[in-house]
Amino acid sequence: MQQIDATPLSDEELQGLDAYWRAANYLSVGQIYLLANPLLKEPLGPDHIKPRLLGHWGTTPGLNLIYAHLNRVIRQRERDLMYVIGPGHGGPAIVANTWLEGSWTATYPNTTQDEPGMARLFKQFSFPGGIPSHVAPEVPGSINEGGELGYSLSHAYGAAADNPDLVVACVIGDGEAETGPLATSWHCNKFVDPRRDGAVLPILHLNGYKIANPAVLARIGDEELTALLRGLGHEPYLVEGSDPATVHQALAATLDRCLDRIDEIQLEARTAETPPGRSAWPMIVLKTPKGWTGPHTVDGEPVEDTWRSHQVPLSGVRSNDDHLRQLEDWLRSYRPEELFDADGRPVERLLELAPPPSLRMGSSPHANGGVLTRDLELPDPADHAVPVKAPGAEDGEPTKVFGQYLRDAFVLNEPHRNLRLFGPDETESNRLNAVYEVTGKAWVAERRDTDRNLAIDGRVLEMLSEHTCQGWLEGYLLTGRHGLFSSYEAFVHIVDSMVNQHAKWLKSINRLDWRRPVPSLNYLLTSHVWRQDHNGFSHQDPGFIDHVVNKKAEVVRVYLPPDANTLLSTMDHCLRTRNYINVVVAGKQPQPNWLDWESAALHCARGIGVWDFASNDDGEPDVVMACAGDVPTLETMAAVDLLREHLPQLKVRVVNVVDLMRLQDATEHPHGLTDPEFDALFTTDKPVIFAYHGYPWLIHRLTYRRRGHANLHVRGYIEEGTTTTPFDMVVLNNLDRYHLAMDVIDRVPSLGSRAASVRQHFSDQRVRHRAHTTTYGEDLPEVRDWRWGRPR
Amino acid sequence: MQQIDATPLSDEELQGLDAYWRAANYLSVGQIYLLANPLLKEPLGPDHIKPRLLGHWGTTPGLNLIYAHLNRVIRQRERDLMYVIGPGHGGPAIVANTWLEGSWTATYPNTTQDEPGMARLFKQFSFPGGIPSHVAPEVPGSINEGGELGYSLSHAYGAAADNPDLVVACVIGDGEAETGPLATSWHCNKFVDPRRDGAVLPILHLNGYKIANPAVLARIGDEELTALLRGLGHEPYLVEGSDPATVHQALAATLDRCLDRIDEIQLEARTAETPPGRSAWPMIVLKTPKGWTGPHTVDGEPVEDTWRSHQVPLSGVRSNDDHLRQLEDWLRSYRPEELFDADGRPVERLLELAPPPSLRMGSSPHANGGVLTRDLELPDPADHAVPVKAPGAEDGEPTKVFGQYLRDAFVLNEPHRNLRLFGPDETESNRLNAVYEVTGKAWVAERRDTDRNLAIDGRVLEMLSEHTCQGWLEGYLLTGRHGLFSSYEAFVHIVDSMVNQHAKWLKSINRLDWRRPVPSLNYLLTSHVWRQDHNGFSHQDPGFIDHVVNKKAEVVRVYLPPDANTLLSTMDHCLRTRNYINVVVAGKQPQPNWLDWESAALHCARGIGVWDFASNDDGEPDVVMACAGDVPTLETMAAVDLLREHLPQLKVRVVNVVDLMRLQDATEHPHGLTDPEFDALFTTDKPVIFAYHGYPWLIHRLTYRRRGHANLHVRGYIEEGTTTTPFDMVVLNNLDRYHLAMDVIDRVPSLGSRAASVRQHFSDQRVRHRAHTTTYGEDLPEVRDWRWGRPR
Repeated sequence: MQQIDATPLSDEELQGLDAYWRAANYLSVGQIYLLANPLLKEPLGPDHIKPRLLGHWGTTPGLNLIYAHLNRVIRQRERDLMYVIGPGHGGPAIVANTWLEGSWTATYPNTTQDEPGMARLFKQFSFPGGIPSHVAPEVPGSINEGGELGYSLSHAYGAAADNPDLVVACVIGDGEAETGPLATSWHCNKFVDPRRDGAVLPILHLNGYKIANPAVLARIGDEELTALLRGLGHEPYLVEGSDPATVHQALAATLDRCLDRIDEIQLEARTAETPPGRSAWPMIVLKTPKGWTGPHTVDGEPVEDTWRSHQVPLSGVRSNDDHLRQLEDWLRSYRPEELFDADGRPVERLLELAPPPSLRMGSSPHANGGVLTRDLELPDPADHAVPVKAPGAEDGEPTKVFGQYLRDAFVLNEPHRNLRLFGPDETESNRLNAVYEVTGKAWVAERRDTDRNLAIDGRVLEMLSEHTCQGWLEGYLLTGRHGLFSSYEAFVHIVDSMVNQHAKWLKSINRLDWRRPVPSLNYLLTSHVWRQDHNGFSHQDPGFIDHVVNKKAEVVRVYLPPDANTLLSTMDHCLRTRNYINVVVAGKQPQPNWLDWESAALHCARGIGVWDFASNDDGEPDVVMACAGDVPTLETMAAVDLLREHLPQLKVRVVNVVDLMRLQDATEHPHGLTDPEFDALFTTDKPVIFAYHGYPWLIHRLTYRRRGHANLHVRGYIEEGTTTTPFDMVVLNNLDRYHLAMDVIDRVPSLGSRAASVRQHFSDQRVRHRAHTTTYGEDLPEVRDWRWGRPR
Repeated sequence: MQQIDATPLSDEELQGLDAYWRAANYLSVGQIYLLANPLLKEPLGPDHIKPRLLGHWGTTPGLNLIYAHLNRVIRQRERDLMYVIGPGHGGPAIVANTWLEGSWTATYPNTTQDEPGMARLFKQFSFPGGIPSHVAPEVPGSINEGGELGYSLSHAYGAAADNPDLVVACVIGDGEAETGPLATSWHCNKFVDPRRDGAVLPILHLNGYKIANPAVLARIGDEELTALLRGLGHEPYLVEGSDPATVHQALAATLDRCLDRIDEIQLEARTAETPPGRSAWPMIVLKTPKGWTGPHTVDGEPVEDTWRSHQVPLSGVRSNDDHLRQLEDWLRSYRPEELFDADGRPVERLLELAPPPSLRMGSSPHANGGVLTRDLELPDPADHAVPVKAPGAEDGEPTKVFGQYLRDAFVLNEPHRNLRLFGPDETESNRLNAVYEVTGKAWVAERRDTDRNLAIDGRVLEMLSEHTCQGWLEGYLLTGRHGLFSSYEAFVHIVDSMVNQHAKWLKSINRLDWRRPVPSLNYLLTSHVWRQDHNGFSHQDPGFIDHVVNKKAEVVRVYLPPDANTLLSTMDHCLRTRNYINVVVAGKQPQPNWLDWESAALHCARGIGVWDFASNDDGEPDVVMACAGDVPTLETMAAVDLLREHLPQLKVRVVNVVDLMRLQDATEHPHGLTDPEFDALFTTDKPVIFAYHGYPWLIHRLTYRRRGHANLHVRGYIEEGTTTTPFDMVVLNNLDRYHLAMDVIDRVPSLGSRAASVRQHFSDQRVRHRAHTTTYGEDLPEVRDWRWGRPR
């Protein structure tokens, strides 16, 4: 690894930087410990100490150091920088720095840049009614939570995409570096267009320890580490040391070199006549002691530069006088009297070192992306709607139709470069390939003649890591742009935990006035459980919906459009929303078009409704057949068809659900139906056979308070499946037309004795089907070729 | 990267290997296409072709090549090898090879090694009633599903751990290599004890393409790739080519070198007097064309060596005569008449190339780990139980108590080396540190004086990757050993999708006679939602339980022991079980001990029960107060205490739930209560205030069929939280004692008018608490110091 042997800082600059760093360190320690006496105007006493000491000192001095040095770079170059902080619990550092530079007070005017403000700043940290110990939504300038680790680098790349003038400095903790999502997100550098995207400057902070263990990358030696980082496509620079003055010079020189190199790469790409190749982007490995400048030893055990400084190095301050004195010495070692005036205001020399307001990292509009969001220009979905002469008479491929809409959306928004499509490797297989008529898949690595649709500036990002796709997209959304993640339904569980964190982030920003709403996180799950008959059991899991609906109702939306036009309408809606997680599940295979455009738009606006064309109940049904999801809708319609043929006297009402949250109570979810609305659709006393896309118990969980709940009988995925035919999949899970029709017969006693033989007939058909399928490997023609409304 | 320039194979050996490879390729293509005419005894006609063509050719020839060459190594060295196959949909290759070597027929005697057997083998593949297209549980010799990608390498390391004589050859697809879990699992090599663990030989198969994209690692150039793999701690060897004879020689020479190197490393470590350092283990990069030996072009488009050969290269075989002829030519290009005799039996020359039965990879007992499983020797939990003089009078730290039990379990099983503890970095923070009295954390990388508890042969595996921990553990369990994963409750969601796949694997092996049950996958989630008050909102998520209970009832178990002795009893049970996923949620903080050992063991055996010592209902309660989880139990008991003080006439029954699945219907889950049992506990007409650990709706989902369900009122986590105090966490979510008591008052109208003022008092206490907490940063003493049964 290269080390830059230069001393670019004048004495004055060095003193200034060091003072700024000391001030941030002082403010960090203050947050962890102090309830009062913020300027140490009196000797530190137990009453000045918080009753619970919560915070993480270990990572803090490193984060503060980098912040101070980035400020220098920003001032000198007038460069637009963002700071993404990976290390866990790095809150104190960023809160300290944003207060010091003025961003915190600009965001929270009550927390002034003076002694009362400092006291408030200290108290609020990790305190009931205050702010978390992480780099949380509450912190201005942040887009990456430091709670769950692993996503800083993909967030940084998402932020840099389509922001050509932005440099995103991304600190990666050596703990975080062990996570899978982080480990693979290094490869994002193969997808950066140096002409149209900004740059990411990764800073791997090796302070050597996690909570209780050494970090792997800190113990493999410099040679192996250098090889690893070069192998990941970077030119790494090493900054190492524990003497502040030396490290200040080295870090300043190295940052200068890295920024120069970024400028060179970009300038060359932006002025060349031919498209650029891939460059080894610079990065920094920063090796400084964990808990640097903190207590060296406590109770005879080494603390600085060990895992013992991970959290609170002095834990007994309120009761142990030695600890209290050591804390006071520690705080005073930063010489606060040189850093803050008598009123607690940072001295002028420090204030001058902060960048001008418009360039402060804590005030970056990119990190409050909603302020930069420009509404998408969207095509008129009616122009893309498929004509439907009669419900169910012809098939359409929903995602293919939506792909054409999306293609036009890319064209309309090309001037703004604010829309991207993300997916592991499935845009084509999910039949969204119309987008390739107008854009490509981003790819800056080596290319070959046989490749198709690769483009350096492609707006589609595909890498076989759901984690990276999700992280990229989150970073892109949180900086105010729009996007869509298309994935296999089963494998989107890979990002369950990331979704949790994003949902929590959205819930939190809903409660912060100054945070502007950001475009929603949109999922299109199209290779779904019922259409993974060819890929088998491991590809069959509809549980992502269950996972998402555990999050706050204000944040989550779930849609199950049953055909092409309803998918169009749903996606058109989702792409216009803010601050939601929209989960849309829809098929890519040919399947019946049920609703023409006008009916589809109306049905989607309502979210749930009776399908009159399929019902014959005249307001008094014997049974309600409800369905949610494309395949359950198909099987329900086929069951209705069977019942009509065999039991024509039966009065059936068909209710279709697009917006799953309509089922919930109006008091539980903003989309929920009131009880009278629900009862009007489902009745309070008639049997309801509900064919649902996912695990059946979710419907019970959403409706258990409804009056008619005891009459509800739900069919769905019961974890049965293998590599088989599409119809066999529904048979294995008792969701097939025959079984639904049998369920009706079982629950409508008034059908009388003729029904028993009809039931037996349906049951026989199931047996016949299985025998045929396992013998011939395909579904019976009567199932494959069935169409609603066909003359018999 | 090194390339070995040697030609170790004699002509005869080369011919033999090539014939074996051709036979496997023939059998693979046959599986994808043929329904009949397996030996091509007549010209291929449309009727011989499967109606649906499902399978993945692209990866298959490479997997077949490696298998054939590993067979050679096994025969020559009489070495115990396992084959872990990462690439997706690699089923045809492994099915072909296990049939060819005899393992398939040994496992499935009806699928004989002759023409009818071959026909059966072909038909069953990706066929209804047959087998999946992946390397699935149905395939002998397998422990890694090729459906969801990313876990092969951690599975391989789990298999190799504590199997000193085993070499696990692990093929990593270049698509899989892009996933996060795979990307970080390379670092497992820092945790291998060359003396006591076996070796993993990674084979990165760069065939260049995924479904529709080039693979990243195939497009970064050899220099960068070499640096990357060296940086990951390996000595990589390159085998590259498209001429079979050349590749055969190079692969044979390289495998020889790698096995020699493994032998050297192990021999040196095993004979040295000092503990070994870390070695750069060998690995292979195999670059061969995707879909090698398949159709070169189809319909004028290049197929071999492009992404077009990913799945079925000739798709129109039944209807397109050109495709049919091309398929026949392709099949005949392997010269089946040289490979199989007239009866379809592999010719003698091929049979001789298979290893002897005991060494065949498809018959490896490690891959059917249940046959090797040795029951754990477990300490008597009674010896570790904490004395409980009176319920709730004193506190205990449940995980600390269990840690002592686990320590003794490690001692008892040390001779067998068949138990391991896995965790990201939390064994210490989860207070299981008693185990360090008898074992250490595995660590073969650089060590420093300040490190604690590291040991080359430690039985605790800690890396800050939940994915790697889970993969390691799965590999360890599936090869027949025992283990436990201790994690933060919120972050175990990181492995949601891996859990899905493991649950599906377990469900599948339950249906396979020849697969023996393996030890259960045990989770101890101890830094749980209610005890993450200090870490904040991002650390608070109890949804893993919801995720798990969607899986098959036969596979999942969820336990919520409320104190130290119930945790002991629960864990003692879980460690003895087979084929389950056991989720145990329990606290690490001091909390009341409720039950002495005998009561705890009885309560856990029942899984649910009335706590008589806390009830005063005499069989006729006014209200049932149910609780599941340690904190909800504490709040429930405190609420009962409040009610007793303020409303002594109220008759309360307390029901505690340890085994959550007891709530389900007996027809839905093997642990489910019958309706009479349920009704006897909960009544059918009295209000039930249920304090639950997780999202409250799960309780409704589990009980919606019960008669008394409408009376059930559940409190739990409603996604509210931040960095605050423990009691404030329950207040924010309305799970606190005051709120529970208010819920009772609201639902027992017979309490009369006095109750209204009591209710107001409780409500005031909540307000008082919040005010105190946000002012002073700690809970009121009356809450902190509350103990059940204290005289007032």
